Amino acid sequence: MGMSEQEKLCNRPIGVFDSGVGGLTVAREIMRQLPNERIVYFGDTARVPYGSKSKDTVTKYSRQIVRFLQTQDVKAIVAACNTASAYALDELEQETDVPIIGVVKPGAKAAIEATRNGKIGVIATEATVSSGIYNRYIKENDENVTVLSKACPLFVPLVEEGLWEDPVTDEIAERYLTELIDVGIDTLILGCTHYPMIRAAIGRIMGESVTLVNPAYETARELKQLLHDNGLESGHRPGLGTELYRFFVSDAADKFQKFANSILTYGILSAKVIAIDKY
Amino acid sequence: MGMSEQEKLCNRPIGVFDSGVGGLTVAREIMRQLPNERIVYFGDTARVPYGSKSKDTVTKYSRQIVRFLQTQDVKAIVAACNTASAYALDELEQETDVPIIGVVKPGAKAAIEATRNGKIGVIATEATVSSGIYNRYIKENDENVTVLSKACPLFVPLVEEGLWEDPVTDEIAERYLTELIDVGIDTLILGCTHYPMIRAAIGRIMGESVTLVNPAYETARELKQLLHDNGLESGHRPGLGTELYRFFVSDAADKFQKFANSILTYGILSAKVIAIDKY
Repeated sequence: MGMSEQEKLCNRPIGVFDSGVGGLTVAREIMRQLPNERIVYFGDTARVPYGSKSKDTVTKYSRQIVRFLQTQDVKAIVAACNTASAYALDELEQETDVPIIGVVKPGAKAAIEATRNGKIGVIATEATVSSGIYNRYIKENDENVTVLSKACPLFVPLVEEGLWEDPVTDEIAERYLTELIDVGIDTLILGCTHYPMIRAAIGRIMGESVTLVNPAYETARELKQLLHDNGLESGHRPGLGTELYRFFVSDAADKFQKFANSILTYGILSAKVIAIDKY
Repeated sequence: MGMSEQEKLCNRPIGVFDSGVGGLTVAREIMRQLPNERIVYFGDTARVPYGSKSKDTVTKYSRQIVRFLQTQDVKAIVAACNTASAYALDELEQETDVPIIGVVKPGAKAAIEATRNGKIGVIATEATVSSGIYNRYIKENDENVTVLSKACPLFVPLVEEGLWEDPVTDEIAERYLTELIDVGIDTLILGCTHYPMIRAAIGRIMGESVTLVNPAYETARELKQLLHDNGLESGHRPGLGTELYRFFVSDAADKFQKFANSILTYGILSAKVIAIDKY
């Protein structure tokens, strides 16, 4: 029994990319909320991290990844990296004929809905903070909201070192977050895909009255809506023998696989290394 | 008055490269010990760090940098990065017609001279530790020496965050170094060019009886010898109007400049960004 043209279009995978492993928290949420969708994930492990790099470099790297994902016949792309979303999304949207969404807009939207006192905090990489993009999106939607951003450069290395529950992580988190507590924010956006891994530590320091927003959840919701609006939803779970999830990296596949298996409930059998700078 | 051919050859600069800013500690030592020599420094700030990447990727990146440095007419090249020295030096030496030295051999040699009890510790990036290169060099020179290596992935981000004198750095250093203390090493190689910046913290934890070896010092000495042996020493300090030191990076020149000026006594006026992946 053959598929109709429409079924073939809808059967194509979602492309998800990140500078490394952080975007797996977004992939995980897509797997949970959209179980019928296939995913092609790319992690740029040869050039990670993006958060300390310039707009030009991040845009160039993101463009190469989008070109690679298009060779995989994706029906939509998720920039599951706040830095790439902040620096490169506008240009990528203009250049690319498949729909692309980032993690920043969904996160900003959720924070506006969550805040009661109009004071939103954003923690992110240096690059995302410098871009001022959360501030811009939030102000565009509600100019009465105050946004306070704080770069937390040590969070990514602490997460990658596995210190998710550790007094050192608590100590560093306390230093970074004190000024956000002092100004009385009631909502905090976890503006880097690594940060949900230390959500517990951040929550302990911020206290129960502060709502933590994980853009991964909102991004998966927005993707669902986007697929629906474009008639691109997969109507059924791909059958046995179909590769539901595929993983590509630019370096060190073994290390990626190990980290991925600590984040995803779905076990990754392998990740394939590709030469991303050729795209 | 024109220069002789030999003077022109000797007047060419030394190429020094690193994945980022760490190699500046080696450049600083070359400036100090070889004040007559010009330097062209390259920091691969678009692809930093190397310490978590694979041999293939580090070799490819190092090869591109060597090609770039050769366009700058260098008379010798210093791989001022332990990871590049560990993974790429053998291949680069074979491919390149100017002499190349790394930081690993000089550091290993100095440690063998320093140890009294034959127990040497090495702290370095994951990549350098995985390569086993310090162990190999030391054993080749003295098979009775015991070498204990320990990867310290958080040291680079802590240094880059500026926490050179900080209880958190002390706490992390204590965790990493305890097992080296327990086995009774009397000599410790600072096997990553960032580590001399937290030498004081490392020294406090190891205690006064442990000799800390900074390969930067030995590397500059070995470079001096190499230039002498090849008749390539510059006989006099370059005159006014000559660009004594030039700095190139692959990204974020401003940030590099700021960091460089905190390390070097010589003030850097500017660093030029080049597209290293074109080489």
